[in-house]
Amino acid sequence: MIVTLTTDFGASEYVGAMKGVILSIAPEARVVDITHGIRSFDVRHAAYVVKSVCPYFPSGSIHVVVVDPGVGTARRGVAIETRDYYYVGPDNGVFTFVRNIKRVVELKLEAKSKTFHGRDIFAPVAARLANGEDITSFGEEVEDIVRLPIAEARISKGFVTGEVLCVDVFGNVITNIPQSLLTKANINYGDRIRVKLEGRELEMPFLESYGFASPGELLALVGSEGYLEIAVNQGRASERLSLKGGEKVEICAVC
Amino acid sequence: MIVTLTTDFGASEYVGAMKGVILSIAPEARVVDITHGIRSFDVRHAAYVVKSVCPYFPSGSIHVVVVDPGVGTARRGVAIETRDYYYVGPDNGVFTFVRNIKRVVELKLEAKSKTFHGRDIFAPVAARLANGEDITSFGEEVEDIVRLPIAEARISKGFVTGEVLCVDVFGNVITNIPQSLLTKANINYGDRIRVKLEGRELEMPFLESYGFASPGELLALVGSEGYLEIAVNQGRASERLSLKGGEKVEICAVC
Amino acid sequence: MIVTLTTDFGASEYVGAMKGVILSIAPEARVVDITHGIRSFDVRHAAYVVKSVCPYFPSGSIHVVVVDPGVGTARRGVAIETRDYYYVGPDNGVFTFVRNIKRVVELKLEAKSKTFHGRDIFAPVAARLANGEDITSFGEEVEDIVRLPIAEARISKGFVTGEVLCVDVFGNVITNIPQSLLTKANINYGDRIRVKLEGRELEMPFLESYGFASPGELLALVGSEGYLEIAVNQGRASERLSLKGGEKVEICAVC
Repeated sequence: MIVTLTTDFGASEYVGAMKGVILSIAPEARVVDITHGIRSFDVRHAAYVVKSVCPYFPSGSIHVVVVDPGVGTARRGVAIETRDYYYVGPDNGVFTFVRNIKRVVELKLEAKSKTFHGRDIFAPVAARLANGEDITSFGEEVEDIVRLPIAEARISKGFVTGEVLCVDVFGNVITNIPQSLLTKANINYGDRIRVKLEGRELEMPFLESYGFASPGELLALVGSEGYLEIAVNQGRASERLSLKGGEKVEICAVC
Repeated sequence: MIVTLTTDFGASEYVGAMKGVILSIAPEARVVDITHGIRSFDVRHAAYVVKSVCPYFPSGSIHVVVVDPGVGTARRGVAIETRDYYYVGPDNGVFTFVRNIKRVVELKLEAKSKTFHGRDIFAPVAARLANGEDITSFGEEVEDIVRLPIAEARISKGFVTGEVLCVDVFGNVITNIPQSLLTKANINYGDRIRVKLEGRELEMPFLESYGFASPGELLALVGSEGYLEIAVNQGRASERLSLKGGEKVEICAVC
Repeated sequence: MIVTLTTDFGASEYVGAMKGVILSIAPEARVVDITHGIRSFDVRHAAYVVKSVCPYFPSGSIHVVVVDPGVGTARRGVAIETRDYYYVGPDNGVFTFVRNIKRVVELKLEAKSKTFHGRDIFAPVAARLANGEDITSFGEEVEDIVRLPIAEARISKGFVTGEVLCVDVFGNVITNIPQSLLTKANINYGDRIRVKLEGRELEMPFLESYGFASPGELLALVGSEGYLEIAVNQGRASERLSLKGGEKVEICAVC
């Protein structure tokens, strides 16, 4: 059984402690690192990883997500059973985009520490799920989970309107605007577009991939998950534009 | 058989070379990264990881530790058999906290290089241990290993006295003061404490977890291994206080 | 079957997506990270990793390399079958040092995205090779691959002449000058050597390992692959000397 890990632990040894716990409880589990490079406490970035990476894993995989600024405080821990996967982690928005939910359980395990539920609660729960234990053995079922309020992208008054979902490790600015909406707004590869962002207006080309822009040039493209992305070829758009997630974006073709 | 890796190799490809060597000798071994994020040459940090993470792994695991500023010089390489685990690495203090030792062997293998014993000596030894080879096939037994001189924490003249064990990747300052000593000194969650550090005196709250302090606020807490830790919520205490390990710490409740 | 990953994805979640794809197609594959710390777009560094790390893996391993500044543009993707391994990645020089080639195939798969062929093309090809599929099922055979132009090191007019192959993660400057050429030029451990680099002349000792120099001291040594390396003990030679790969190097003993 595959257990994936997504955390903001960086290069720290705390990842190793989680792996040790999982392998001690479920020796046959295969622990796979998705990333430990979520920016510290960036719940929004974690939510995007859950949305964009977890679905590539085989059905039955158990996805553990530990981006947990509120560890030890009142925030709940949850385990979620969906049609395809299990998810385990803090109920703080990291599971915003999880769909096809069958059951959610609020985790009621005793933790050895108040500061490391990744090791003391989430890892053991994942391992026991890998061993075939039923999700209801970890606590009471609850009705719903915390989801970040993210309005769907739409076309309005000639503009495609959405928001910055998050910034990836490379500084690419990922929006929630799907390619289909661009097509509807008649924005095509090679066009120049106008982008309104936090009171600024920028112009840039809409291109098929990073390498079609000059190094250092700002561009828009459709990212690997099918959403509009603002990037700098071989550079960091998030720093150039001072963005970090949550900002409103409006786009139109330059007429 | 599980072979864990703890190094200061960072994101480098040298980790990959060790994995290739291990899997070539012991194809069935499961290589698990604990961390490659030990600060360069920080033997003290490595010792703390060995103490605080290795025990979470299943009995029989083989722990390879390569933090080795003296590679190629006269420092010994060792393999250690304990009640629960094997440890392999340089004998420079990284195994300071290893207990229940049954046998220690000084490694006497020929290395292809003078600069990368992780790949040329420690990885092959770990792989051969994983294959069931006896520890004595790698060299002569020796009596003891190098241990860093770390005085035990104690209560003295109304102060709890200890030292900074190390700084973790997040800049949290981990001391060797166990929670039991705080309890004995009548220091409880919610108290304000006075901390003497390198000639400075600081006051901070003693709280249950990071999230009970405001972002940017200095706090003391009991870390995930049960030792007093000085931290900044969502920040780096080590930089705020210019600490890196080894400093003396004295603590009392603010009266 | 072992599938290794070498990328410049750093701590990003994109690595996780590749692993998910591989494990979905080839559930029995063992995915091993060599490194994700190749400097962004540093094809030369990737080529050196392929040369110096891949050969430590068991015969039959499938090596995926994704350092791909031209993704989505006209550069080819290739799969290479050699006597010992398979290699999969962009044909941009990362396979410069691959030898014993039996067949090269230009990859002709449809990609879901234009920006992430690591996930959409290279990972599936590697997984299908792991499943035993023949290399010719992925496209037409082609004659040759792109190789970076790197002149062999030689002795000329009393100087050993070579070039900087690349800079590793620690800032060590790795040249293409083999130890045998140094021996031929009568340069021995303990000698002081003169190094001409980009119009500058430097003197430094030629020592057996980093630890024989003082911390912060510049030295030359034979690196773990048998090539001359310029380093700073516990420091970064590449920054001290402003080198990044490709520079010409000339060396002689100080008389």
